[in-house]
Amino acid sequence: MWFGGDYNPEQWPEKVREEDVDLMLRAGVNLVTVGVFSWGLLEPREGEYRFEWLDRTMDRLGEAGIGVALATPTASPPPWFTLAYPDAMPVTADGTRLTHGSRDTYDVCAPAYREASARIARALAERYAGHPALRMWHVHNEYGSWSHSDHTARAFRDWLRRHHHDLGRLNEAWTTAFWSQHYSEWEQILPPRATQYLPNPAHVLDFRRFLSDEMLDHFLDQRDVLREVRPDVPVTTNLAFGDWVPVDPWRWAEHLDLVAVDDYPSLTGQGGAEQTAFAADLARSWAARVPGGGRPWLLMEQAAGVTYTGELTRPKSPGETVRHSLAHVARGSRGAMFFQWRASRGGAEQWHSGMVPHAGPDSRIFREVCELGSLLPRVAEASEAEVVADAAVTWDPESWWALGSPSLPSRSVDYLESVRQVHRVLWRSGRTVDFVRPDRELPRVPLLVVPALYLLSDAAAERLARYTEGGGTLVVTYLSGLADPSGTVRTGGYPGALRDLLGVRVEEMYPMFAGETVGMDLGMVREEVTTWSEHVHLAGAEAVARYAGGPLDGFPAVTRRRYGAGEAWYVSARLSDRGLGRVVSEAAGTGPFPEDGLDVVRRVGPDGAWVFVTNHDDRPRRIDPARLGLGPDAVDLLSGASAKGLNLPGGGVAVLRGHPVTG
Amino acid sequence: MWFGGDYNPEQWPEKVREEDVDLMLRAGVNLVTVGVFSWGLLEPREGEYRFEWLDRTMDRLGEAGIGVALATPTASPPPWFTLAYPDAMPVTADGTRLTHGSRDTYDVCAPAYREASARIARALAERYAGHPALRMWHVHNEYGSWSHSDHTARAFRDWLRRHHHDLGRLNEAWTTAFWSQHYSEWEQILPPRATQYLPNPAHVLDFRRFLSDEMLDHFLDQRDVLREVRPDVPVTTNLAFGDWVPVDPWRWAEHLDLVAVDDYPSLTGQGGAEQTAFAADLARSWAARVPGGGRPWLLMEQAAGVTYTGELTRPKSPGETVRHSLAHVARGSRGAMFFQWRASRGGAEQWHSGMVPHAGPDSRIFREVCELGSLLPRVAEASEAEVVADAAVTWDPESWWALGSPSLPSRSVDYLESVRQVHRVLWRSGRTVDFVRPDRELPRVPLLVVPALYLLSDAAAERLARYTEGGGTLVVTYLSGLADPSGTVRTGGYPGALRDLLGVRVEEMYPMFAGETVGMDLGMVREEVTTWSEHVHLAGAEAVARYAGGPLDGFPAVTRRRYGAGEAWYVSARLSDRGLGRVVSEAAGTGPFPEDGLDVVRRVGPDGAWVFVTNHDDRPRRIDPARLGLGPDAVDLLSGASAKGLNLPGGGVAVLRGHPVTG
Amino acid sequence: MWFGGDYNPEQWPEKVREEDVDLMLRAGVNLVTVGVFSWGLLEPREGEYRFEWLDRTMDRLGEAGIGVALATPTASPPPWFTLAYPDAMPVTADGTRLTHGSRDTYDVCAPAYREASARIARALAERYAGHPALRMWHVHNEYGSWSHSDHTARAFRDWLRRHHHDLGRLNEAWTTAFWSQHYSEWEQILPPRATQYLPNPAHVLDFRRFLSDEMLDHFLDQRDVLREVRPDVPVTTNLAFGDWVPVDPWRWAEHLDLVAVDDYPSLTGQGGAEQTAFAADLARSWAARVPGGGRPWLLMEQAAGVTYTGELTRPKSPGETVRHSLAHVARGSRGAMFFQWRASRGGAEQWHSGMVPHAGPDSRIFREVCELGSLLPRVAEASEAEVVADAAVTWDPESWWALGSPSLPSRSVDYLESVRQVHRVLWRSGRTVDFVRPDRELPRVPLLVVPALYLLSDAAAERLARYTEGGGTLVVTYLSGLADPSGTVRTGGYPGALRDLLGVRVEEMYPMFAGETVGMDLGMVREEVTTWSEHVHLAGAEAVARYAGGPLDGFPAVTRRRYGAGEAWYVSARLSDRGLGRVVSEAAGTGPFPEDGLDVVRRVGPDGAWVFVTNHDDRPRRIDPARLGLGPDAVDLLSGASAKGLNLPGGGVAVLRGHPVTG
Repeated sequence: MWFGGDYNPEQWPEKVREEDVDLMLRAGVNLVTVGVFSWGLLEPREGEYRFEWLDRTMDRLGEAGIGVALATPTASPPPWFTLAYPDAMPVTADGTRLTHGSRDTYDVCAPAYREASARIARALAERYAGHPALRMWHVHNEYGSWSHSDHTARAFRDWLRRHHHDLGRLNEAWTTAFWSQHYSEWEQILPPRATQYLPNPAHVLDFRRFLSDEMLDHFLDQRDVLREVRPDVPVTTNLAFGDWVPVDPWRWAEHLDLVAVDDYPSLTGQGGAEQTAFAADLARSWAARVPGGGRPWLLMEQAAGVTYTGELTRPKSPGETVRHSLAHVARGSRGAMFFQWRASRGGAEQWHSGMVPHAGPDSRIFREVCELGSLLPRVAEASEAEVVADAAVTWDPESWWALGSPSLPSRSVDYLESVRQVHRVLWRSGRTVDFVRPDRELPRVPLLVVPALYLLSDAAAERLARYTEGGGTLVVTYLSGLADPSGTVRTGGYPGALRDLLGVRVEEMYPMFAGETVGMDLGMVREEVTTWSEHVHLAGAEAVARYAGGPLDGFPAVTRRRYGAGEAWYVSARLSDRGLGRVVSEAAGTGPFPEDGLDVVRRVGPDGAWVFVTNHDDRPRRIDPARLGLGPDAVDLLSGASAKGLNLPGGGVAVLRGHPVTG
Repeated sequence: MWFGGDYNPEQWPEKVREEDVDLMLRAGVNLVTVGVFSWGLLEPREGEYRFEWLDRTMDRLGEAGIGVALATPTASPPPWFTLAYPDAMPVTADGTRLTHGSRDTYDVCAPAYREASARIARALAERYAGHPALRMWHVHNEYGSWSHSDHTARAFRDWLRRHHHDLGRLNEAWTTAFWSQHYSEWEQILPPRATQYLPNPAHVLDFRRFLSDEMLDHFLDQRDVLREVRPDVPVTTNLAFGDWVPVDPWRWAEHLDLVAVDDYPSLTGQGGAEQTAFAADLARSWAARVPGGGRPWLLMEQAAGVTYTGELTRPKSPGETVRHSLAHVARGSRGAMFFQWRASRGGAEQWHSGMVPHAGPDSRIFREVCELGSLLPRVAEASEAEVVADAAVTWDPESWWALGSPSLPSRSVDYLESVRQVHRVLWRSGRTVDFVRPDRELPRVPLLVVPALYLLSDAAAERLARYTEGGGTLVVTYLSGLADPSGTVRTGGYPGALRDLLGVRVEEMYPMFAGETVGMDLGMVREEVTTWSEHVHLAGAEAVARYAGGPLDGFPAVTRRRYGAGEAWYVSARLSDRGLGRVVSEAAGTGPFPEDGLDVVRRVGPDGAWVFVTNHDDRPRRIDPARLGLGPDAVDLLSGASAKGLNLPGGGVAVLRGHPVTG
Repeated sequence: MWFGGDYNPEQWPEKVREEDVDLMLRAGVNLVTVGVFSWGLLEPREGEYRFEWLDRTMDRLGEAGIGVALATPTASPPPWFTLAYPDAMPVTADGTRLTHGSRDTYDVCAPAYREASARIARALAERYAGHPALRMWHVHNEYGSWSHSDHTARAFRDWLRRHHHDLGRLNEAWTTAFWSQHYSEWEQILPPRATQYLPNPAHVLDFRRFLSDEMLDHFLDQRDVLREVRPDVPVTTNLAFGDWVPVDPWRWAEHLDLVAVDDYPSLTGQGGAEQTAFAADLARSWAARVPGGGRPWLLMEQAAGVTYTGELTRPKSPGETVRHSLAHVARGSRGAMFFQWRASRGGAEQWHSGMVPHAGPDSRIFREVCELGSLLPRVAEASEAEVVADAAVTWDPESWWALGSPSLPSRSVDYLESVRQVHRVLWRSGRTVDFVRPDRELPRVPLLVVPALYLLSDAAAERLARYTEGGGTLVVTYLSGLADPSGTVRTGGYPGALRDLLGVRVEEMYPMFAGETVGMDLGMVREEVTTWSEHVHLAGAEAVARYAGGPLDGFPAVTRRRYGAGEAWYVSARLSDRGLGRVVSEAAGTGPFPEDGLDVVRRVGPDGAWVFVTNHDDRPRRIDPARLGLGPDAVDLLSGASAKGLNLPGGGVAVLRGHPVTG
């Protein structure tokens, strides 16, 4: 179990650095990430290296038995780089050339930047490959910087040639016949720069795909250098998550030794717990693509003690830092890391938190950090055991990007929220979710929910049909299947590629105004639809629920169709959490879900079973190992107590180890 | 009666194109606009033309008896144009040079663009001038693109020389003594580019005038080419409407054979009906300036089946597409055209509607299109008959532009809404409105309303006085007459040029805060004033209503003055629709208006009279031909039924033909 | 007592200019500011001067006995300047080069601009130094223009060299170790230009300091020219106030002969009165640094008759213009000046007010101007008497700038509002406030309030301790003392530099969401805290009030500590005005304050005492000279009446002269 955080001793005087190691040992820290933003100090002038301070840092940590995830510092070239290579600075869509003064200011397509990156990576690799403290290579930081420069244009065209091969096919895929965008030479293609009016959505979509691949190339340059010098040390990079991030983690995971993620929930309380589970389930699912199996992943960054809400920075409640960390571990993280060890005094993030806050070690935050450090070793035994998922949800970054277009029937379309809602509903009903992308095999779980899967290839649609045919329960929501992978709308009635499988034909979409609602009869409860509705015709399916009132009064809203040994459901409207939960439970045949406030994650390995239980309620709750699928001899690894009759206090966590029993 | 829409076969495979002609015939389509955005396919490389696909399209349509409005494609130069002529790309006020990737990306002042435009227009003219399917030339599309480039600067200076002649007069007209803006050479004048603080409003106003004229020049280049090659085919262009559009339709109409307009209401229901009548009344009024008389105009674009609200795309109610189309025809449109024939699968407008929607012909939208196609021929006989207006309203794009300045006494000033409100109130009271601009003769109707006519020349003010003197009822609202045509404030008391005519002197303006109200006694009803009030002194007028409460308590709010044989009213405050309606009715001497939910448009020709009646209410309404000014033998052209005792259902339309009787 | 306004005769025809002098004499005007924006007319082409119109203006004014504050016109270079020196145009952070078309369009660091400025200043000085009408030099206008150009970069680096001397110290002060911003050469430092993500707050802060100094240099260039030519005429510049203004008036005042300020309250009514007192107290406090003593300052601009609220322009209430002017005079202004004499007809500010409004002299505004002109001479006798302050408040532009950072724990942090709130509370309790900046000596008043003093040097913190030790009552609010002058956070517990003095240790900040509240027990009243709260530990202090409810339930919220002969209070939360007023009264030992609606300012000179009393209430209020510290023979200079038994009507002002008595 890795435990620690980003460590930036270069910001502090020697006295503080000495205290650091003592405090790390007190807290149980065993891994720190060093050097993420140290390029300026490591190479203060081009080709002139200063490794002494890093030598001392590595040595001191190594002597204390603390491992190092050594970072290549390429996420932030130093000021000299701007002056030496002005053409390697990023350019915004409207032509503004950015300069240093923050971080991440580079053009990933610029040859000078690519060369400088590989050079500093090699210098680090050669110096520290054999250092005893070295545990892991950490390439770059939170890939996700855009540029629209001429370098980018050239690289984009190369990518397009590789992917479309023929200019005619590109013109077809992008529908360039519309608005006179026909390209007669490759050279005419540019990144989506400032233009007069709405951009071409297929152009924008391919640009985001290209950016992901181009940044991956930059990563691979470094990975290959590091592997060449020291083949046995794992290489990773910490993936960020946001709508501005043009990275496709499914594809990146295929090239990583370990999926590392940063997780900064924006909500406090129950919302934060849901966001944490969401991020951890995503990370574990991406990690399924890491070569070699075993789903290795690690929570590389989180905030100690606080939540960043966008509006303000809010202290977490007592115990929340521990709960969030264990929620990640429960879902497969190989530990819990933080940004950063010590809260900075200066710089743009001087008000971000640290494991050692501004107030110093005599603080709630540091005490909770120490507590967490003492708990992690107790649950380490579960780290190879597999997480048992009982539902799957599709997650597709390309559909997310496509649904970011300004040209959709409604501005309220929100892919991420659609996926989050499905995950939330399943999480609250006690299910553990695997995310999948239907570009390969589909999961073996009995329930698969497909929210807003806008882009869908014929092959993927066929795979969904086979899943259902084989006995799976498929629940598809509105905005799915509308377009092919180029973003071209499938005509003849929505939802395009899924019309036959679902047995419906949608004639028109009825997006709803902010504040507008329309009723829906959903068994005994009356549901209020918001944001989205559709004019649905049955074509093989039966209506499970119908619109009540409004322009679609009486038309089907939720449908079901037997399909082979399974069932295919369609939800044509945006429902409330409660309404969607009811539909999903009905589809899954489990009746209304319990919402008992317990987060339960089961893990099974060759030598036993572990169940992570978190009580998100305020009230204590009695745990019955049998109902959690464990024999009566189960024990709680955190408290050491017998699991039998365990009374979990509000906010409490238990990790039960036992033998699996089938109820 | 023209019926059809934009047709872009180049986006579709041959199989779909074959189906297109069949479906067009089924729907009764007799005109399609072809080639609007086809430059990229017609001239894929500079000087290299590909007309084959267009030949086939024209032939196929011609063989089916479907006419073609052949467009010059100059609204969207192809990608090769950007690379060949980078200096012909538009430049924003802050210096960003735009590039292709959308549409409308050109600098209308760039010589290369002007030449390329004339060249492709001539190539089309020469190839298709004699084609039997050709009915109309459709130049460009929705003129309204801005640039602030050096080409623009040069052309702007040329325009200024022609309009101000002398630099001293320009300095005077622009008050350049303020803020040290004195120009000592013409070369010092630039377009309104990014500057430190507030721009000079006179500078900005002249720039918008210039843009209108410059785009008109671009139009005339092409018109002249087309006329030269084929003098007998009418030339038009579709005018867009929005505050970003620097086009003065009054001036453009003088150069068109037919006024064509695009109309996309942003409201649904009753609001959409009002917006439709507003747009149609504007178009008919502009068309009064088309040389040759007869007010020829055509609704060139509307959306089939949906409303774009800004927030979302909303299906229209059943029958609404037909109602909106007939509301245009009632007001003089020579038919009803749509954008576009078939909803696109790709491109930035892939989610815009079509006469054939994504769902295909088995759809409500296509069925309504067919219904409309069957109704239009029945009302064609009215198309030469004149629309009978019973009120006039001033509409002045230059005042609109001037009131877009950021330097006014209130940010809530909204010219368009002021005009819309007056039109709305008159429309609801059953009146048909002509729009006028007081730069020439004034109308002969008994009621003229002048909302927010900020810019007013001495001559125009004099014309308003003569109208009133001659017996007209003039109702002027706040924000009128304040400035001369340069935008220079007329001193000595507001409303400047109209002080004497109205018999008032306004000392100070009292704009009101959002949410603030002040009372006004208006006969028996108490009115709540919002947004605007004024400190009015009587100077010949009498007070009709006074402010009640607030800082103007007891001061006149609405005034009336006998003037010759007529009356001049002044409304110094922003009233509610109900309040303004009451004032207008009082001024017109007609008492409170009925608001019976009927939209009635009367047309009179040499051989009869026609009355278009639309029931905007939900409830059916009995029609009495006598009260509509028709004899008892009137018949409804749509249903074929006798007009006598006709019961028009909610949402229903009737077109009664009969002989005019004077009630 | 100066009375008048900006006078721009160049905008008007001769006839109006003739009327101007008559009206000025009628109003009692004795000073007008001429030439502020006249560069374009004075130097229509480079090096070609046209002084004739200014000669005539000066002569005419001089002959009428009206003095002139002659402005150098450098705030707005003419259009020819742009063409001659394109490199002297300002550049925005994203690289947009601005051009003329407004005002203030220059790069203060550009050599060409500096030279042109000095040249025109010298030309004016040489021509008018001996003119009998000359009373004052008015350099430039409202300094506050930004640029991020290469000229700026060079000057910024020079400034940084002078202030940090050593690059290593700069790297340390800016914490450039964070995010790899280490500078290895001075040349690498740029202004804060567009960059990828958050800027370095220390970089931004130094840039604002630099801008203030650089503009001061530009001022000094001209001051020195003017002094050289005519040493005995005072030189001033009008200081603007706003968060966009990078001017540090404390430092500028050291170089002025007279502090001149522009004051445009954004609120009407009581809020406007508070804003007026705030601005006047600031100006008087800055003027304490003018060499030579005597706190000379002048209200150089205000709006006649209207308030600009941002949303709209609103007429002031009857008498309000006079009240605001006298409120400035009460606080030490040597008169009351306006922008501008006559409301402009054209230009960007054509809708700004004037002493002669658009409506002309037959107007409420001009009548009130005349009234003010008649009152001012009656109170002139008080102009040398010192204002008696009874409380002090810290005001620090650098903390304001630092708290404008986007990286703080809450986006709702608002330095200006924090200071305004403290001033408001003291003003309502009848106190007159001196502002201080703790970089020198501290005030001798018994109460010092320190709101949000984010940046604090060790020396300044020490000074606050000495103030308290010596018997003062110190009230410090949240956000104070957190950082050193570089903006580096002081660690070990907040509020950093003041921890020991206040006897508290704050562990974590708890910013609050918009709409969130938490209770606080405050004596008998229950207070609702919003926006900000803190986790406070007592470390020598005692709790005066505690949080009630929420995550900090029971923790101290307001604390008090005996410190030497004084007391140090800490307010850890954002309170309501009422709550803060209660705390301050409690700290000051005065009990709840009266809020009697009277604004009272006492002035004492060698030959008497004067008390300015304004009744901001609607109801009349009886004045008791004794309670105001005056003997029974006091008279009201405005009405001439005896002060005894004076009944001041709502909105009324009295200026009582008498002999001070000690109650």
